[in-house]
Amino acid sequence: MKKFTIGAALLSMMFTGINAQSLKSPDGKFEANFQLKNGVPFYNLKYNGNVVVEDSKLGLRLFKDSSIKFASEIAKPEDASFDLNNGFTKTAEKRDSKNETWQPILGEKKNYINDYNELAVTLNQTSSDRSIVIKFRLFNDGLGFRYEFPQQKNLNYFVIREEDSEIDFPTDMKAWWIVADYDSQEYQYQTTKISEIPTQWPKAFDSNASQTLIKNAVQSPLMLKKEGKEPLYVNVGEAAVLDYPASHLEVDAQNFKFKTHLTADRQGAKGYIQTPSTTPWRTIIVSPKAEVLMDSKMMFNLNEPTKYKDTSYIKPTKYMGVWWEMIIGKSQWAYSTAENVHIGKTDFSKLTPNGKHAANNTKVKEYIDFASANGFQGLLIEGWNTGWEDWFGHSKEFVFDFITPYPDFDLKMLNDYAHSKNVDLIMHHETSGSASNYERWSDKAFETMNKYGYKSVKTGYVGDIIPRGEHHYSQWTINHYYRIVEKANDYKIMVNSHESVRPGGESRTYPNYISAEAARGTEYEAFGGNKPDHQTILPFTRWMGGSMDYTPGIFQTKLDYYFPGDKRFVQTTLAKQLALYVVMYMPLQMAADLPENYAKHMDAFQFIKDVAADWDDTKILSAEPGDYIHTARKAKGTENWFVGGVTDENPRDYTVDFSFLDKGKKYEATVYEDGKDADYINNPQSYKIYKKTVDSKTKLPIHLVRSGGYAISLKPIK
Amino acid sequence: MKKFTIGAALLSMMFTGINAQSLKSPDGKFEANFQLKNGVPFYNLKYNGNVVVEDSKLGLRLFKDSSIKFASEIAKPEDASFDLNNGFTKTAEKRDSKNETWQPILGEKKNYINDYNELAVTLNQTSSDRSIVIKFRLFNDGLGFRYEFPQQKNLNYFVIREEDSEIDFPTDMKAWWIVADYDSQEYQYQTTKISEIPTQWPKAFDSNASQTLIKNAVQSPLMLKKEGKEPLYVNVGEAAVLDYPASHLEVDAQNFKFKTHLTADRQGAKGYIQTPSTTPWRTIIVSPKAEVLMDSKMMFNLNEPTKYKDTSYIKPTKYMGVWWEMIIGKSQWAYSTAENVHIGKTDFSKLTPNGKHAANNTKVKEYIDFASANGFQGLLIEGWNTGWEDWFGHSKEFVFDFITPYPDFDLKMLNDYAHSKNVDLIMHHETSGSASNYERWSDKAFETMNKYGYKSVKTGYVGDIIPRGEHHYSQWTINHYYRIVEKANDYKIMVNSHESVRPGGESRTYPNYISAEAARGTEYEAFGGNKPDHQTILPFTRWMGGSMDYTPGIFQTKLDYYFPGDKRFVQTTLAKQLALYVVMYMPLQMAADLPENYAKHMDAFQFIKDVAADWDDTKILSAEPGDYIHTARKAKGTENWFVGGVTDENPRDYTVDFSFLDKGKKYEATVYEDGKDADYINNPQSYKIYKKTVDSKTKLPIHLVRSGGYAISLKPIK
Repeated sequence: MKKFTIGAALLSMMFTGINAQSLKSPDGKFEANFQLKNGVPFYNLKYNGNVVVEDSKLGLRLFKDSSIKFASEIAKPEDASFDLNNGFTKTAEKRDSKNETWQPILGEKKNYINDYNELAVTLNQTSSDRSIVIKFRLFNDGLGFRYEFPQQKNLNYFVIREEDSEIDFPTDMKAWWIVADYDSQEYQYQTTKISEIPTQWPKAFDSNASQTLIKNAVQSPLMLKKEGKEPLYVNVGEAAVLDYPASHLEVDAQNFKFKTHLTADRQGAKGYIQTPSTTPWRTIIVSPKAEVLMDSKMMFNLNEPTKYKDTSYIKPTKYMGVWWEMIIGKSQWAYSTAENVHIGKTDFSKLTPNGKHAANNTKVKEYIDFASANGFQGLLIEGWNTGWEDWFGHSKEFVFDFITPYPDFDLKMLNDYAHSKNVDLIMHHETSGSASNYERWSDKAFETMNKYGYKSVKTGYVGDIIPRGEHHYSQWTINHYYRIVEKANDYKIMVNSHESVRPGGESRTYPNYISAEAARGTEYEAFGGNKPDHQTILPFTRWMGGSMDYTPGIFQTKLDYYFPGDKRFVQTTLAKQLALYVVMYMPLQMAADLPENYAKHMDAFQFIKDVAADWDDTKILSAEPGDYIHTARKAKGTENWFVGGVTDENPRDYTVDFSFLDKGKKYEATVYEDGKDADYINNPQSYKIYKKTVDSKTKLPIHLVRSGGYAISLKPIK
Repeated sequence: MKKFTIGAALLSMMFTGINAQSLKSPDGKFEANFQLKNGVPFYNLKYNGNVVVEDSKLGLRLFKDSSIKFASEIAKPEDASFDLNNGFTKTAEKRDSKNETWQPILGEKKNYINDYNELAVTLNQTSSDRSIVIKFRLFNDGLGFRYEFPQQKNLNYFVIREEDSEIDFPTDMKAWWIVADYDSQEYQYQTTKISEIPTQWPKAFDSNASQTLIKNAVQSPLMLKKEGKEPLYVNVGEAAVLDYPASHLEVDAQNFKFKTHLTADRQGAKGYIQTPSTTPWRTIIVSPKAEVLMDSKMMFNLNEPTKYKDTSYIKPTKYMGVWWEMIIGKSQWAYSTAENVHIGKTDFSKLTPNGKHAANNTKVKEYIDFASANGFQGLLIEGWNTGWEDWFGHSKEFVFDFITPYPDFDLKMLNDYAHSKNVDLIMHHETSGSASNYERWSDKAFETMNKYGYKSVKTGYVGDIIPRGEHHYSQWTINHYYRIVEKANDYKIMVNSHESVRPGGESRTYPNYISAEAARGTEYEAFGGNKPDHQTILPFTRWMGGSMDYTPGIFQTKLDYYFPGDKRFVQTTLAKQLALYVVMYMPLQMAADLPENYAKHMDAFQFIKDVAADWDDTKILSAEPGDYIHTARKAKGTENWFVGGVTDENPRDYTVDFSFLDKGKKYEATVYEDGKDADYINNPQSYKIYKKTVDSKTKLPIHLVRSGGYAISLKPIK
C-alpha cells in the first residue's frame, strides 16, 4: 500500500510538479507554464487565472545533421531519430528579469518600457545527448518564447525540416487573417472564425507577381479575439526574425490550433543552423483591451539594442514622390519603347522615348518645387534609372545597375536643384527580386547615393527572387535584406524595403531600417482596391513589429478623373486619408498624390503638411480590429498633438475625449471631418474644416461616414 | 503523267535541294550539309565522301516565353507550341570564311591557325513568326555549329526546357567516356563501345563531394573511334560555354546516337536567354589520325579574341605547394581542433592548435627555400586562412572570408620572405561551393592579393553550390566563374579554378583564366587511384578546350612510406610522372610532391626544373587514346626541345624519331627512362638517366614499362 501511495504521489508530481515550471508576469496577471509530458515539451498561458492558450506542443524536426550529400538528404524519407521534439529531460532552469526604459531612435513614444520575467529551461535529449534551451519571457502584455541551440559537441550544424511550435486555443475565436504565401503579404484581410478558415481560404486571394501559397495556412502577425462577456484580444506573431526563415501558421480548424510553418527554400529545407543560435521569438500578445494590445511594444522589446556607433543620420522623413502617376497608369517608369535592353550595352540615348517617362528633368523639378514650397524633406523618384523597359517577368538577373540614369534624368542637376530648395531626393532601388544582382552593385549604388546626397533608399523586390528557388521569406533572402541594411549603415543610409518580409521589431537592432511595405498598401487601391476595413486591421497586424510605408494621402480618389470610364477608386473618403497619418505610425511618411490634386485642396493638404512623423507620446483612444481606430499622438519635442480616427464600411459617431491634453492648457484644434454628405463611393471629396479651442475637459462629437475619418491638429494657445 | 513527273521532281528537290545547303572545309575534305525536312532542321557531316555523322536533328524546347509566374510555369506539362524545333522555313543564307593566324598569350605553339568556311542559315518558324540562325563553321579538322537568337519582336526572352542537338553516328564506335553529372567530372574513364554505355554506366562512378548523376548520359569532351581498316577519330565537345549551362550527352545506345542534355538549375530550367544571344558551339573534331585530332585548336578558334587591354601580367608559372601533404593525410588544412567556427566572431588565437596545420610560418619558409633554390616561381599555400575547421559538408554559406590568416601564418612576413627569394606565393580561395559568399568577398580578397604581391589564385568549389539548388555546371554558376575571372583581370590576377566547369577554349577571350582542374587529377591517386590509362585519355578529352592543372610530379608514389600498411599508391612509375610535364600542356605547372622526396632524387627532379611551361611549337609524335602518347615541344623563345611519352597498363617499346629537330644541328639530349626492372606497383622509383648527342636523323629506342614513361630534355650544342 505504501509503495503504491508513494508511486502515485511521484506520478502526480511528475505530471504536475517536477517537470513543470511556472512563470508570472511582473504584475502577476499572466502565468505561463512549461512542462515535459513523456519527454515532449509543452507550454500554456493563463490570464487572470483563465486559460488563454491550452497546453501546446513545442519542438523541431530536422534533416540528418551535417550531411555530406545534402541535396540527396532532402529527398530521403523522414527519420524521426534526428528530431528535437521528444525524449527530453530537463537538466537546468534559469530565471531572470528585466525592467528597463529605452529610447527608440524613431518611435511612437519617447520611452519604451521593457519589463519581463524570464524562464529558460535546458532540455537534454538523452538518446542523442543534444541539449536545447527554451526561453520564455512573460510581459504584462503577454508571452514571448524561443528556442536556443548552444554550441556543443553533438550539435554544431543542422538543417530544419520544420519547426512545430503550436498554439492551441481552448475555443473558437474571431480571426483577421491573410493567406500564407512564401512570397507575398499583399492580400485582403479575411474576417472569419478560426473554424471557418479552411472554407474561406480558397476565396481569400487574388494573383500576385510572386506567389507561393500554402493551403490552409495564414500569415502572422495574426489578430484574434475571444468574443463574449469577457472579450480577450490576442495577437500571434514573431520577433527578431534574423538568419532564419519567416514563419506562417498552419491551422487545425477543428481544434482552434495553429502551428508554425517555416518558409522553405527550393530544396524544401527550412533553415541552415550553425550553433550557437536562437530562433526568432514567437509572440503572443494578449489584452482584454484592443487599445492596449495595439499599443504593445513587445516585439521591439524582444530585439537586441543596436550596436550601431552613429545613429545621428537616422531621421523622420516626410516625402512626396514621382510614383502614384505610374501606379495608376498615367505615366511610366520606363523611358523608351524598347522591349529588350541590355544594361551596360544598350545606348539608351538612341532608343525611342515613349513620351510617358515620368522621371524626367522637367517634371521632377516641378515636384521639387511643390515639395519644397510645402515643407516636405524628401522626394522619391521612381523610374530614374535604366532598365525599366523589360524589368519584370523575364527572370532577368542583370536587370538594373542602380547607378545609370536615363537620358532625361540629370542626376547632378536635379540633386543640386533639390538641395537648393531644402529637399533631398529619395533613391529608388527596385531589384526586380534579383537580390544577388543587387548585392553585386550595392557598394557602387550606395557610393553613388553618397556622392549626390541621397539620404534614404526605397528598395523593391517585385517578382520571384533570384537566386532562383529562394522565396521572399526564406532564410537566405532575409539574410540578404539585413546585409543590405548593414551595408547601408556603413554609408549612413536609411532603408525602406518593399515586397520584403514584415518586420518583427528588428528596427531596434537596425534603426536605419526605418520602414517597409510588406503588406497590401495604397498602391493596391489602383490594383483592385482595399476593402474599407483594411486600414482598421493593419495596425493590429502588420504594424505590431514595425512601421509600414502605407503611402496614403490620395485626394483624387476616383481614377475616372484621369481615364474616363475607369471604375477604379481609392476606397475611402478624403478625410479618412488624412486620418491615416495619425492612425498609422509612419516615421517615413508619404503624401502620395500628384501635386495638382493637393493644389486643389490646399486647405485639407494643410493637415498633411502639419502632421508630425516622430512622436513623444501615443494614446490609442479607442479601437476595434476591423471596425475603427481612434488615436492621439504628441509630436516629438513639441506640445502639439494630432488626433485621427477611421471607420470601416459602417458610418460611426465618435466623441473625442481630449483628457490626454495637459491640464489647464488651452489648444487650438483644427478639425478635418467628413462632410455631412460625404460618401467614399459617391462623394469622397466632401469634407469640412473648422477650428475650435479645446482643453483637457473637451469632448468633441465627430461623425464618420462609411469608410470615412477625421483628423485634428492641436497646438497650445500661448 | 506530266504532272506526276513534275511533282516527283519537285518532291525530290524539296528533300535534297531547295532546303538543303552544303558547306565544304577549306581543303575540301569535309562536307557538312544542312537540311530542313518537313520544317525540322538536320545536319550531317562527311569526310572524304564518307558519312561521319548521319542526318542528325537540331532544335530546342522552351518553356512559355516571358512568363510572369515563372516558378509555376516550370511545373506545367510541356507545350510543344513554344518549341523552336519544327515548322521552319529557310528565309536567308549567308556564307563567310576566315583564315587567320593568331598568337595565344600562353599556348602550345606560337601561332594558332583559324581557317574555316562558314554557313549561316536563318530559319523562321511561321506559326510563331520567330527566327533563329544556325551557324556552321567547317574547318580542316571538323565542324562547329551553334544556334543564334537575333533580337526581334517575338523573341526577347525565353527559358530553355532542353536543347536537343543530336549527333547520330552510322556505326558503333569505341568510346572513352565518364558519367554525366551536373556537379563533377572527377570520374575514371570507361572504355566501351557506344552500344555498351548503358550496361557499363551503373558501374562507372564512385562517390563525390557534390554529385548529381544523369543516368545513361556522358560528359563532353567525348572521345570516339571508328575502328577498322580506315579508322576515324572523333571528338564531341562544346566551345565558348558562356552565359549558358554546360551540356552533357544522352546516349541512344541502339542507334549510336547522342543528344545534348543541358545542366538544369534546381527549378529544372536549363537556360534563361535574352536576345540577341548565341549558344555555345557544338564541336565535332575529326581526323583519321589521333595525333592530328589531339593537336586541334578548333575550340580556341571558335572563341572571340580577348578584349583585355593589358595582358602583360599573364605569365606561365612553375610552382610547388603546401598541398600534397594534406591530400595524403600527413597534415591538415585546419589550424585547430574546433568543430565549429564563426568567421568574424571566433578568436582563432584562443583555439587549441591541432599540431598538424601545414600552412605555418616555419614550414612555409622551408618550402619557399626549396622552391627558390630550384627555380620555381610560385608556391601555393592551402590552409592559410581561417575557416577550415568546419568548411565542408554543412551547407555553410559564410564559410571563408578569404582575407584572415590563421594565427601561425604571417601574411606580410611570408610574402616578403618569398619575394626576397624570387618566389611568389600563390593564393588559395577555396569557396566550399559557396559562390555567392565568394562574390561578396572577392573585391576585398583581390585587394589583399594585390597588397601582398600575389599574382595568381587557385579557387576551389568543393561541395554543393550555394545559391542552393544551382549546380557546378548550371548557367548561373558558369556566369559566376567568369564574373570572378573578369574581376580578377581588373586586379591583374591569374585564375586557376578547381571543381569548376571544363573549359571550351574560353581562355582565348579570358586569357587570365590560365588553367582549371575540372577532371580527375593527381589528388585522386590518394582518393582511390587513377587507372594507368587515365593520362593517355585526358589529353584527348579534358585538354581539348584548355589546359588542366593536373598537379603531377609525385616521386614518392607509394604512400605506405608515410603510413605503414597504407595500400594507396600513385599508379605510375616515377619516370612517367616526368613525362606528364610534356604530354600534358600545363602553363601553370606544379611539382606537387614534398621537397624531401625531390631532395632524394635531385637527378630526376632536374627534368622538372628544366622543363618549360610555355611553347613555340608542339608535335604530337604518336598517340592512341587509352594506350599511349608521345609528344615533343619547343620551349618558347629558345631552341630547347622536350619530349615525353607515357603508356597505359601495357609495357611498350617506342622509337623516338628526332626529325622535328632543326636539320644540321646537334643537340644534347638528357634521357630519363624507366629502369629495366621498373614497375609502377612494385618498383616505381627505378629509373635511369643518360645523356646522348642527337640530331634530326637520330632514332632512339625507348622501353616503357607498364604505366611507365620517359622524358627527354634537349638543348642545342653550340
